[in-house]
Amino acid sequence: MGKVVCDVAVSADGFSAGLNQCEERPFGDGDMGMLHSWMFDAPDENKAELAQITAAKAFIMGRNMFGPIRGGWHSDWNGWWGSNPPYHAPVFVLTNHPRASLPMEGGTTFHFVTDGIESALRQARQVAGDQDVAISGGASTINQYLTAGLIDELRLHITPFTLGVGTRIFDGVPPLKLEQVSSRAASTVTHITYRVIRP
Amino acid sequence: MGKVVCDVAVSADGFSAGLNQCEERPFGDGDMGMLHSWMFDAPDENKAELAQITAAKAFIMGRNMFGPIRGGWHSDWNGWWGSNPPYHAPVFVLTNHPRASLPMEGGTTFHFVTDGIESALRQARQVAGDQDVAISGGASTINQYLTAGLIDELRLHITPFTLGVGTRIFDGVPPLKLEQVSSRAASTVTHITYRVIRP
Repeated sequence: MGKVVCDVAVSADGFSAGLNQCEERPFGDGDMGMLHSWMFDAPDENKAELAQITAAKAFIMGRNMFGPIRGGWHSDWNGWWGSNPPYHAPVFVLTNHPRASLPMEGGTTFHFVTDGIESALRQARQVAGDQDVAISGGASTINQYLTAGLIDELRLHITPFTLGVGTRIFDGVPPLKLEQVSSRAASTVTHITYRVIRP
Repeated sequence: MGKVVCDVAVSADGFSAGLNQCEERPFGDGDMGMLHSWMFDAPDENKAELAQITAAKAFIMGRNMFGPIRGGWHSDWNGWWGSNPPYHAPVFVLTNHPRASLPMEGGTTFHFVTDGIESALRQARQVAGDQDVAISGGASTINQYLTAGLIDELRLHITPFTLGVGTRIFDGVPPLKLEQVSSRAASTVTHITYRVIRP
């Protein structure tokens, strides 16, 4: 069985998104470009970490990471990533509202899971086999999986600004012991990989 | 004029102390030994960072970092550090309760400042001259200085556990732009130095 991994870019104060997400601002209010500028401004320097983010063979994400729409599905919204999303594998979207699976170009198919995080993980594991499953975010989804003890490896990409408000990684999660597996400084980001130690 | 620097060991979720500080638990509840174990378990590996923490020529700390006593001074408490504290320089303690200066062995003298953070910094700068002044903590004191725009360099020592509750660095501080000056991984801690960018 593969690992359950989680990559998340955070501000120095631990936020992975601001408030008031909308279609124009997928990461909400605040200067959120800074959270991901290392990906776009210095892709060579951060090549290994970038490759890692989409290396899993199945992905799980929260409804808000899939889109800004709340409530029932009433549009043809098909994610933030255009016709060929970067996942190239099944993506299980946690939602309370059923929707038919949505195949995209390049091997990505969005499946909408209405029966909870454990069911989504079971389905993702089945697809991934002995490869990794990635919890893609956002913070609320990551925190639910951390609380349930279902993440093996957490990879924080810590960026040089603070946000002050928003959705924060670890919020509401009981205290965790971690093992620092690796830590690498790039010029504008620090990549830390933690193994979550089972109690 | 020297820099105003600040070293602080934090959990992966940004706490520098737990709740319920008392004489037996200077850092409050939780497994707080983990916050500073890199200092004691791997001093050689972290030699540069350890030296940096006490390199300033004047120090400022909050009342709770000086001791667990609340309210007026009613005991002969003289800090957590024994007769020869590691500062070897004047230490300005922020408090609402006047107290005579307290000279210790080795060059440390605790001065008790009752007229606010800017006064403490003025006095510390006067002593330090062209050398650095350090804001020693705790989080509440650091956050007041960050909010006032008075810290030049913030050095986070990020340790592998989460605490969930306590006093947290950046809490209540307006959004900051930072520059990652350096970042270094030791085996059980990541040291990140940020320059605070003036707006």
